[in-house]
Amino acid sequence: MASERTAGDVLRLDSAATGSAVTIGSELGPARPWDRWLLGVVQRHLQGAAVRLRLWDGSAAGPPEASAVGTIVISDRPTLISLARDPDVTFGDAYMQGRLDVEGDLLALLEGTFRAQRLNASLHTDWLRSLAAGSNTLRRARENIHHHYDIGNDFYALWLDRQMVYTCAYFADQAMTLEDAQLAKMDHVCRKLRLRPGEQVIEAGCGWGALALHMAQYYGVYVRAFNISSEQIQFARRRARDAGLSERVEFVEDDYRNVRGTCDAFVSVGMLEHVGLDHYPDLAMVLNRVLPPDRGRGLLHFIGRNQALPLNPWIRKRIFPGAYPPTLAEVFTRILEPRDFSVLDVENLRLHYARTLEQWLDRFERSIERVHMMFDAAFARAWRLYLAGSTASFRAGSLQLFQVTFARGGDNDVPWTRAHLHG
Amino acid sequence: MASERTAGDVLRLDSAATGSAVTIGSELGPARPWDRWLLGVVQRHLQGAAVRLRLWDGSAAGPPEASAVGTIVISDRPTLISLARDPDVTFGDAYMQGRLDVEGDLLALLEGTFRAQRLNASLHTDWLRSLAAGSNTLRRARENIHHHYDIGNDFYALWLDRQMVYTCAYFADQAMTLEDAQLAKMDHVCRKLRLRPGEQVIEAGCGWGALALHMAQYYGVYVRAFNISSEQIQFARRRARDAGLSERVEFVEDDYRNVRGTCDAFVSVGMLEHVGLDHYPDLAMVLNRVLPPDRGRGLLHFIGRNQALPLNPWIRKRIFPGAYPPTLAEVFTRILEPRDFSVLDVENLRLHYARTLEQWLDRFERSIERVHMMFDAAFARAWRLYLAGSTASFRAGSLQLFQVTFARGGDNDVPWTRAHLHG
Repeated sequence: MASERTAGDVLRLDSAATGSAVTIGSELGPARPWDRWLLGVVQRHLQGAAVRLRLWDGSAAGPPEASAVGTIVISDRPTLISLARDPDVTFGDAYMQGRLDVEGDLLALLEGTFRAQRLNASLHTDWLRSLAAGSNTLRRARENIHHHYDIGNDFYALWLDRQMVYTCAYFADQAMTLEDAQLAKMDHVCRKLRLRPGEQVIEAGCGWGALALHMAQYYGVYVRAFNISSEQIQFARRRARDAGLSERVEFVEDDYRNVRGTCDAFVSVGMLEHVGLDHYPDLAMVLNRVLPPDRGRGLLHFIGRNQALPLNPWIRKRIFPGAYPPTLAEVFTRILEPRDFSVLDVENLRLHYARTLEQWLDRFERSIERVHMMFDAAFARAWRLYLAGSTASFRAGSLQLFQVTFARGGDNDVPWTRAHLHG
Repeated sequence: MASERTAGDVLRLDSAATGSAVTIGSELGPARPWDRWLLGVVQRHLQGAAVRLRLWDGSAAGPPEASAVGTIVISDRPTLISLARDPDVTFGDAYMQGRLDVEGDLLALLEGTFRAQRLNASLHTDWLRSLAAGSNTLRRARENIHHHYDIGNDFYALWLDRQMVYTCAYFADQAMTLEDAQLAKMDHVCRKLRLRPGEQVIEAGCGWGALALHMAQYYGVYVRAFNISSEQIQFARRRARDAGLSERVEFVEDDYRNVRGTCDAFVSVGMLEHVGLDHYPDLAMVLNRVLPPDRGRGLLHFIGRNQALPLNPWIRKRIFPGAYPPTLAEVFTRILEPRDFSVLDVENLRLHYARTLEQWLDRFERSIERVHMMFDAAFARAWRLYLAGSTASFRAGSLQLFQVTFARGGDNDVPWTRAHLHG
């Protein structure tokens, strides 16, 4: 199924996105003073990063080759113009289409750029925040999720772990394989939730179902797991049947806003990024409705930020439409505080996500021939850039991975220490 | 020195504070319909709590005695009027002066009341927040701190642990004594800070110096510790000399805003509550100045809230002028986010503070005769109410105790897991 698709389907390439891409190659020739001026504009966006720029005629800017972590090679004038005007989106689109290339270590170049950008970032980004909020209505949410998660289970199986877990792993010790680290992550989450046999759990945004099945199988709980990606839900249901867990785990193809019933524990791993700030109160309402008023506990695992900033616009446009990584304060003030939930524990697993992504990227590259059989070159380059860029963002500290454990405000049946997490 | 003082010095009692306290006893007689109406007003403030009210003539309101956790006995009409008008402050003042008493379990009565109030609390408290912010200028801060902390080391020595630690202990196991739990807390903080021998530490708000000395003695670091309470600083300096640690620990009598120099780690235990929201940016500036730009780490340990609300007005008026327990979001948005600090870890030790306070209250009661030799009856009653009320607030979930560990946003030399905390 996946192999019938093209990057055109998946990444919504259109001529508007690439500006004057139709003129590629038609204007080659020596760079003019005007081109050099544009090169300077682009260079300012990279201020503080040891990144070299080179044009089609060999003229260059930035630090000498020996001290640069890499060189961005721009192959034509329209790309240069577009890069000066809208560097983030153009960089991604042009890389994807091969109108721009990177010599040297792609990961190091991106990490260096993100570190520099983080230091240069303006602190006055309130207006950006409102832009970033988007409006993930029920229908838009379904379209956004379909865009990313329904491109074919076979493709994800190429580079995810055996359990098909598409969220940050937990390398309890650094020598762990990705397979073990995903199991360790699921156990870490279950311990934080203090699951007891026979309890009811609701999971919002369950991916291919690995955590739901793990909780039922190893912690003896009953799970209702929600997801709006049809391909994922079908896959998860098959797994439940194969594992004989259909009686204990129900996979529901529906939006988190439609979650009904009650539970002892609520968990969501990697969904909050897709909710959008202006729908956090909806999630708060769901938490308040499904958890009992005097007890009940929950865990939110999400990609976040130290400072409020929208997601990289290219990632948002091509990879994760509608996505936004929140700050802890945004989550607390819009979800937990208004309902008097008490934050018990916050853990930042940023470097674990960098490690997870490194391994995904490595597996992706090792499967690149299969990827090319499924998709076109632009798709493969876009996906490489997304995985490398995400790795670099976590390494550079531009993105965080937060696990927040919470309970009802008046509940005194909370863990005395964290000894149960590291037993 | 402490014994020369009276409650009048310490608690600033004045006639304005008690309303028409001069009329005490002059209006006793059977309660009238008007009194019963006022009693109803007072009762509404206690809605949802199993607390009984009784007037001077025996007339009562609330649940029957058998199902009440306790009875508030109001001894005269002016107290009743004042209680109806301003219940929080009047309750404390009248209890302190013996115009009001509690029959039954004081702690249980307070906890029940706070639990009910937490559930009734309005969520629209933004205007209260601004009131609560106060303005702790350098001079006001000094007066506020003098008010509470300079009432005599001898008094605190009666009921604190041997190390004189006046902040939440960490009962790593529940059977620990208070003495051991305070040592465990200091070790917990040092492990979270990952102190290495030879490093420089700055402590803001060092109390009687226990943590500063502990860090120097057991973790081999150099400490500069700041405090604006003269009695505490003098005491701490004597301890440093006695322990032969004067070369490694410098106690500075100055405000956190005047902290200069640099350090590898910054720690503040129980000071943030006294800073005041509108001075959080000052603290952020200090953190940014003293920690190196590429590394450096810190820990803030403070009493906080799940929702923004001012401190109980009686506690604020009589015990801790200028104090405010913030939410995590207030700390993050005003201190850590603007400087791109990364939150690594948040731990909520609410029940540990309830346990700590129980033990302080117990020791206080066992020393009550000595307290009466030092201070008058009103002081002793005020202090009992403060300790019992604080215990009840932590038990009821009205107050939290947060430990926040943070690092520079781009620093990858952060702990891989929390195994080092529970080794």
